[in-house]
Amino acid sequence: MEQTMAQDELHEECGVFGIYDLDGHDVASSIYYGLFALQHRGQESCGIAVSETQGPKGKVSSFKDMGLVNEVFNAENLERLKGDIGVGHVRYSTAGASTRENAQPLVLNYVKGTLALAHNGNLINANELRHDLEYTGAIFQTTIDSEVIAYHIARERLKVGTVEEAVQRAAAKMKGAYSIVVMSPRKLIGARDPFGFKPLCIGKRDNSYIITSETCALETIGAKFVRDVKPGEVVTINGEGEIFSDMTNAIDPCKEGRCIFEYIYFARADSHFDGISVYDARIKAGRFLAQDSPVEADLVVGVPESGNAAALGYAMESGIPYGTAFVKNSYVGRTFIKPKQSSREQSVRVKLNVVKEAVAGKRIIMIDDSIVRGTTSGLIVNMLKEAGAKEVHVRISAPPFLWPCYFGTDIPAREQLIAYNRSIEDIRDLIGADSLGYLRIERLKEMVSGLPICEGCFTGTYPLAPPTEDIRGEYER
Amino acid sequence: MEQTMAQDELHEECGVFGIYDLDGHDVASSIYYGLFALQHRGQESCGIAVSETQGPKGKVSSFKDMGLVNEVFNAENLERLKGDIGVGHVRYSTAGASTRENAQPLVLNYVKGTLALAHNGNLINANELRHDLEYTGAIFQTTIDSEVIAYHIARERLKVGTVEEAVQRAAAKMKGAYSIVVMSPRKLIGARDPFGFKPLCIGKRDNSYIITSETCALETIGAKFVRDVKPGEVVTINGEGEIFSDMTNAIDPCKEGRCIFEYIYFARADSHFDGISVYDARIKAGRFLAQDSPVEADLVVGVPESGNAAALGYAMESGIPYGTAFVKNSYVGRTFIKPKQSSREQSVRVKLNVVKEAVAGKRIIMIDDSIVRGTTSGLIVNMLKEAGAKEVHVRISAPPFLWPCYFGTDIPAREQLIAYNRSIEDIRDLIGADSLGYLRIERLKEMVSGLPICEGCFTGTYPLAPPTEDIRGEYER
Amino acid sequence: MEQTMAQDELHEECGVFGIYDLDGHDVASSIYYGLFALQHRGQESCGIAVSETQGPKGKVSSFKDMGLVNEVFNAENLERLKGDIGVGHVRYSTAGASTRENAQPLVLNYVKGTLALAHNGNLINANELRHDLEYTGAIFQTTIDSEVIAYHIARERLKVGTVEEAVQRAAAKMKGAYSIVVMSPRKLIGARDPFGFKPLCIGKRDNSYIITSETCALETIGAKFVRDVKPGEVVTINGEGEIFSDMTNAIDPCKEGRCIFEYIYFARADSHFDGISVYDARIKAGRFLAQDSPVEADLVVGVPESGNAAALGYAMESGIPYGTAFVKNSYVGRTFIKPKQSSREQSVRVKLNVVKEAVAGKRIIMIDDSIVRGTTSGLIVNMLKEAGAKEVHVRISAPPFLWPCYFGTDIPAREQLIAYNRSIEDIRDLIGADSLGYLRIERLKEMVSGLPICEGCFTGTYPLAPPTEDIRGEYER
Amino acid sequence: MEQTMAQDELHEECGVFGIYDLDGHDVASSIYYGLFALQHRGQESCGIAVSETQGPKGKVSSFKDMGLVNEVFNAENLERLKGDIGVGHVRYSTAGASTRENAQPLVLNYVKGTLALAHNGNLINANELRHDLEYTGAIFQTTIDSEVIAYHIARERLKVGTVEEAVQRAAAKMKGAYSIVVMSPRKLIGARDPFGFKPLCIGKRDNSYIITSETCALETIGAKFVRDVKPGEVVTINGEGEIFSDMTNAIDPCKEGRCIFEYIYFARADSHFDGISVYDARIKAGRFLAQDSPVEADLVVGVPESGNAAALGYAMESGIPYGTAFVKNSYVGRTFIKPKQSSREQSVRVKLNVVKEAVAGKRIIMIDDSIVRGTTSGLIVNMLKEAGAKEVHVRISAPPFLWPCYFGTDIPAREQLIAYNRSIEDIRDLIGADSLGYLRIERLKEMVSGLPICEGCFTGTYPLAPPTEDIRGEYER
Repeated sequence: MEQTMAQDELHEECGVFGIYDLDGHDVASSIYYGLFALQHRGQESCGIAVSETQGPKGKVSSFKDMGLVNEVFNAENLERLKGDIGVGHVRYSTAGASTRENAQPLVLNYVKGTLALAHNGNLINANELRHDLEYTGAIFQTTIDSEVIAYHIARERLKVGTVEEAVQRAAAKMKGAYSIVVMSPRKLIGARDPFGFKPLCIGKRDNSYIITSETCALETIGAKFVRDVKPGEVVTINGEGEIFSDMTNAIDPCKEGRCIFEYIYFARADSHFDGISVYDARIKAGRFLAQDSPVEADLVVGVPESGNAAALGYAMESGIPYGTAFVKNSYVGRTFIKPKQSSREQSVRVKLNVVKEAVAGKRIIMIDDSIVRGTTSGLIVNMLKEAGAKEVHVRISAPPFLWPCYFGTDIPAREQLIAYNRSIEDIRDLIGADSLGYLRIERLKEMVSGLPICEGCFTGTYPLAPPTEDIRGEYER
Repeated sequence: MEQTMAQDELHEECGVFGIYDLDGHDVASSIYYGLFALQHRGQESCGIAVSETQGPKGKVSSFKDMGLVNEVFNAENLERLKGDIGVGHVRYSTAGASTRENAQPLVLNYVKGTLALAHNGNLINANELRHDLEYTGAIFQTTIDSEVIAYHIARERLKVGTVEEAVQRAAAKMKGAYSIVVMSPRKLIGARDPFGFKPLCIGKRDNSYIITSETCALETIGAKFVRDVKPGEVVTINGEGEIFSDMTNAIDPCKEGRCIFEYIYFARADSHFDGISVYDARIKAGRFLAQDSPVEADLVVGVPESGNAAALGYAMESGIPYGTAFVKNSYVGRTFIKPKQSSREQSVRVKLNVVKEAVAGKRIIMIDDSIVRGTTSGLIVNMLKEAGAKEVHVRISAPPFLWPCYFGTDIPAREQLIAYNRSIEDIRDLIGADSLGYLRIERLKEMVSGLPICEGCFTGTYPLAPPTEDIRGEYER
Repeated sequence: MEQTMAQDELHEECGVFGIYDLDGHDVASSIYYGLFALQHRGQESCGIAVSETQGPKGKVSSFKDMGLVNEVFNAENLERLKGDIGVGHVRYSTAGASTRENAQPLVLNYVKGTLALAHNGNLINANELRHDLEYTGAIFQTTIDSEVIAYHIARERLKVGTVEEAVQRAAAKMKGAYSIVVMSPRKLIGARDPFGFKPLCIGKRDNSYIITSETCALETIGAKFVRDVKPGEVVTINGEGEIFSDMTNAIDPCKEGRCIFEYIYFARADSHFDGISVYDARIKAGRFLAQDSPVEADLVVGVPESGNAAALGYAMESGIPYGTAFVKNSYVGRTFIKPKQSSREQSVRVKLNVVKEAVAGKRIIMIDDSIVRGTTSGLIVNMLKEAGAKEVHVRISAPPFLWPCYFGTDIPAREQLIAYNRSIEDIRDLIGADSLGYLRIERLKEMVSGLPICEGCFTGTYPLAPPTEDIRGEYER
Repeated sequence: MEQTMAQDELHEECGVFGIYDLDGHDVASSIYYGLFALQHRGQESCGIAVSETQGPKGKVSSFKDMGLVNEVFNAENLERLKGDIGVGHVRYSTAGASTRENAQPLVLNYVKGTLALAHNGNLINANELRHDLEYTGAIFQTTIDSEVIAYHIARERLKVGTVEEAVQRAAAKMKGAYSIVVMSPRKLIGARDPFGFKPLCIGKRDNSYIITSETCALETIGAKFVRDVKPGEVVTINGEGEIFSDMTNAIDPCKEGRCIFEYIYFARADSHFDGISVYDARIKAGRFLAQDSPVEADLVVGVPESGNAAALGYAMESGIPYGTAFVKNSYVGRTFIKPKQSSREQSVRVKLNVVKEAVAGKRIIMIDDSIVRGTTSGLIVNMLKEAGAKEVHVRISAPPFLWPCYFGTDIPAREQLIAYNRSIEDIRDLIGADSLGYLRIERLKEMVSGLPICEGCFTGTYPLAPPTEDIRGEYER
């Protein structure tokens, strides 16, 4: 038996959440709620580390394990996490390195006491940095980039006067995507790579300050959005509630490169990054599809959940009614096992079913956010036809997916991508649709009102030169 | 710490799934998939019992426990369930009697071998039947009605020649709501009460026959709908694939009384019962609301998931655009714990967040399927306003909820119902809406095209005289 | 992988413990401690059921599961067991029927309220009684004899005025071995079969009364031994602390038949039954062996734990020094798994190791309580030789094991018994001993000072005619 | 509720087991068996790490968790541990630092690939070494000494040509007690501190080489003892089965200091270290007690298990018969919970009961290996008296326990030791014995035939100057 459908989806590689309650209240339950709001960013492991800023300097309580937030945490272990400053993490990783040892936050003792660190992103020079460290006698107990970052912070701390300077200097050595939250005994620090690949924002609730991956986590705990952490910025929040900004690592804003897939797929529709609402971007993508790939039809439907907003945009723009074609079974989770004799079709059917009455006899425009391998798409098109749809026109709210990502998204090998070496017409034929339209690459920047973005997975051109070797090879087991 | 939000929702009390594979293939994985499709009908416990029709008569393998389908079953215990005939069950119950002993299916040895039984519904004469049995020396090891039914089947079996006759005669003694699936060594039997309170249908996939609560479970396993089990009918499927129907217990069709709440709320939108599509009924409810409680507004939104179809109907009828206002966090499940210091508001926010961009500056029509205590509704209205909605008009796709249910729905005491002793205007004020409209009672029958229904929870008039005493008292602990 | 060594040992089939605290204190923790003391009588499942005699009549709280006492019970579930009267049970069973459903105590509702029942022993007419009940419409949810007993109590209760009378009349129908403890809402009742196969005794601590399998459980909870329950007796303890005795079912004392294997092997050395100390009986067995099978040697050692007392007796009688030859690893428990590539020898070595210094160069007399299949014995003799023992003389503190037991001991099929169709000399040769001596059958009665005993497993002659068919066949799966 | 009796016992701090199978067979199951044999050395956590010497250099599979060997390992996780070289560990620690993070073996990547390390002992300069490392930028993820050792190995490896040289040079920096097993990709290395505080030995089975804490682990897996690792020695076993010895770190043999408590209490009686049998040492201790503290009596008994061998020695020397007074309940394990209302007496009674028949009316000499706080001893003496013992003469096979241990034994604070500031007569009075005798300090060396020993816990004089500060303070949380 094996887990299922995971193979035909893309995966984010983490969410981070840090909080400092200046009034000294325990923060573990706020982190717990925040991680629920970030769960879509990583479902393999999660963890929380907290500390008492008024207690013995450096006493950290932490708990982390494989599993979802509601599997890992219970009344008992949450109760034991006492502290007014803390960080949390949810993680997705490729199967091999998905071990308990690699769960985050990383908690460590170093020259100046303790530190807990949560990281979202992927470094492309992690191996070089790792080797350099090893040649000065470092030992590594995990295979995650966070440990490399932690080492560099510790080493820089020997040279400079504050932990935030050490974070800035360590960050200057990192190449790639990183949004980091660091808990030191009396400071909460956030850092975002100069390209701004991954989101990171600041929030506030009463006398508590939060640094986290998405604004939806702020709203979930009742906090207000303060501002985004800027690309290249190191932000420090101290015990007086002062926010210090260090822009040493920043680059020319025009060279920044936000991950466009955060807007298309990864992020929650109720989040906004760098001034752009995820929901608005998706609505726009739908509108662009309606403009660029129009088709006569009776109903626009989204593949839940992520296709719904673009479908709404398509419906608004085209005037074709929006409808619901599918019931999604939310009880079929990560741990769903696939009995031996089950087919892939069975695995899709248990997750998704068509509402016959909604589609029978109709020409359907079906909006999805991506086609990866194409197997699931083909099955869904087929389900619509079986339910009586006269035509099924598939529209994808992103361009064809063609290149690897080195900055934090887990993508299958090129050969497994349906768009690799295939024409749109071939793909249409394979998935059995009556017509197929992708979002035009030119539309991506328009979707986010001109923000500089990374669209490497569609174009092969990255804001930062990708590594020449497979960066996952050596340490992932 | 305690579980949350459950208090402000209504609950179904079970789903059943039986299957007989005439080709002798194992059926446990099909039951497992079927139970996933029925999980919305009960999340407290579940179980599967199977038997080999060609093996030693009566060897039943079973497994049941507290928890969701994906918590209770794993590769190992599914593997051990060998058999070509079987029944499965998902269960919700009031807190007190939610014990492992009460999980179903009930497996038993009796005079003619073995039997496994799964039951959805609630008997109003269970206590009398139980007492009668005790006065002839019966012992009871659970507090569920199913055990009473099992006893009667066993006793009737002494008097008649076949198990299906025994089921029919036992059913004749039951008063109340029941949809039952019985597995005997070589027959699969289904029975539905004469009023047809709870749904039950027959399906077929290749050489397998299925009797289950909802048609969505048929589609999930790739089976075709054959027909509904009729109110009062006992259906028997034997090893030759013959389907026998016994209508002895049937009553005047005009006196039947389907549970209207199945259409409004409990059932999955992709199911249909007795010729009526749940989706269609909900669309209609939305249309009726638009006709009967019109209001000027910019956007119609549903409270996910169950409010969405009615919202679509409202939008269609009114011409006001349909939109999505909420992101629902599907990772917050049954086992979500509520840390001590958390407020009810926090509990709602972790489940539901508003997409500001979708609602800001707009007049919103918010469709929900019911208001029970009203606390959650108030919080949601408030969230919309905080997000910038100019007006919030609440429309409920059911009449006000005023009376107890004796036939399988778990309803709070009258005093806790928001509509009890309050005018619509009072309720509107309490939940902070700008206007409030309920579905008119007259519309209920129209929703289901004239099917005879039970609308007792709205009117206090039931198809069957309710018990004079509290029927849950004595055996529920 | 599989569990190990179990195959080469004999097994008891249960221990029972009932307690009634007249001062109204909770009894669950006393039962928990009592079950620890009885754990050697059954390691497969255990359970506790309690009730509040001053609470609503019949509210029983219970918990039972597969596993050892310290695996099944924890702070949380013990805390929830509130009540001043209760029964507990530890169970061993043959593999097939070792399911959670069959765990005890059995808790039931019947005509007069509730009852919890714990049973040690084996009925030889259970199938007949079961069939008789089925022909009057009974249903069975387990495959344990206790359910048959419970039914009969419920039925008799309809005819008589008190539960104790019902127990007595039900007991009168049972053939075979039974020691039962019954908890009714306000009475604690014990019953022992007329032959007294299995032990049962009464104890008292302050204002609490206990009925349990072994006196060691009394001492473990700090209670005093009051007296044994007599063969055929039904004992009732009421809320005033009165003890009523009903001897209706008793037979001619000379025909009684205590299980001699309780003294030889099953019971703990610190228990005493029917006036005879288990320890004394084992010391005597050792002395008899020294008298009847003397041999020149340097050291007498016991195979731990059960061979130690007899070894001490042999040493006393012979004047040969007693010593310790083995270290037993008590961490290797029931759940020890045996990796695929492991040999039986490995399985023995992980449990038992020889202290070389104690045996090297010496002629050893090794005392064990039985040889079942002989494989383990052979390995142990070999280990002694490897450790340098010059000679190994094996003495068994029981006669050769030759016949099945129908009264509660799980014995392999005759063909698997080493003594079946083999001479003593053959057995000696097989296990590699230099000499071999068994206890003479005549000595058994002497061991227990003339108590009437059942020695059927050695002689094939039973106090009660054994069943003609295999009594385990039909209901054990 | 809390765990119990642990407080009144002394604890060892670990056992190690390494193995290299030159024929390429998997070693995980041998480690698993070996850890069972070492379980008495640590019951809080355990782990196994293995590697394939012919596979990709450095691929380590490992599993570790809190719990006993049979709780942590099961068929599934053992099956996944593929490799022909490996190390295992069992651990005891003081409560605070008893976390999953601190479980061993420690697995790490460093400059030359991977390493797994298991450690028994306690360094007294760990904090200094840790600080030194931190001042060169090291980070620490655990609070165990093993991480300090690992760092030094990694750093030394940069300077020298082989891992074994690095181990030797790292060891040269350690002060205190350590017996280490290191797995590198193609070598198994063992190192023992110059004082030889903790045992370590080499074994061989067919073409497999083993380095482990105790010889009993060799016998358990069917291996032969080759020799002890010498104090100060670094032993390396390569892929050709060659054993290299490096004695660079050795000191004057007369200054060595074996832990005498290994012989008295910690080690299993079937082990031998440095030429001395643990069993023989205990027998001698008993004989010395008989010579130095004679008393007229009828029976000599040991407090199980560790008092039994000394009791036998006392009996041999005195001519007073040896007997068994206690039944120990081996089912009461580490996870035994103590319900709130339970007394300490209850906790002792559930573990130990007196066989009345063995002691009633007799004058008893009771041998135990130590009195720590004295509470348990007092309860046991009382139990013997209650059982009818006329006199109870306590003899302890060690001198009074008076000083802290810095080398790996967990000892309560001085104020809690019964012998602190009390005369022998005071202690005798407190525990209620009729007489009390301790082993004379002069006898300790005699017990082990003149081996140089550390007897610091009795005399306050250590082979190595103890630290001036509390060495556990800073990093243990």
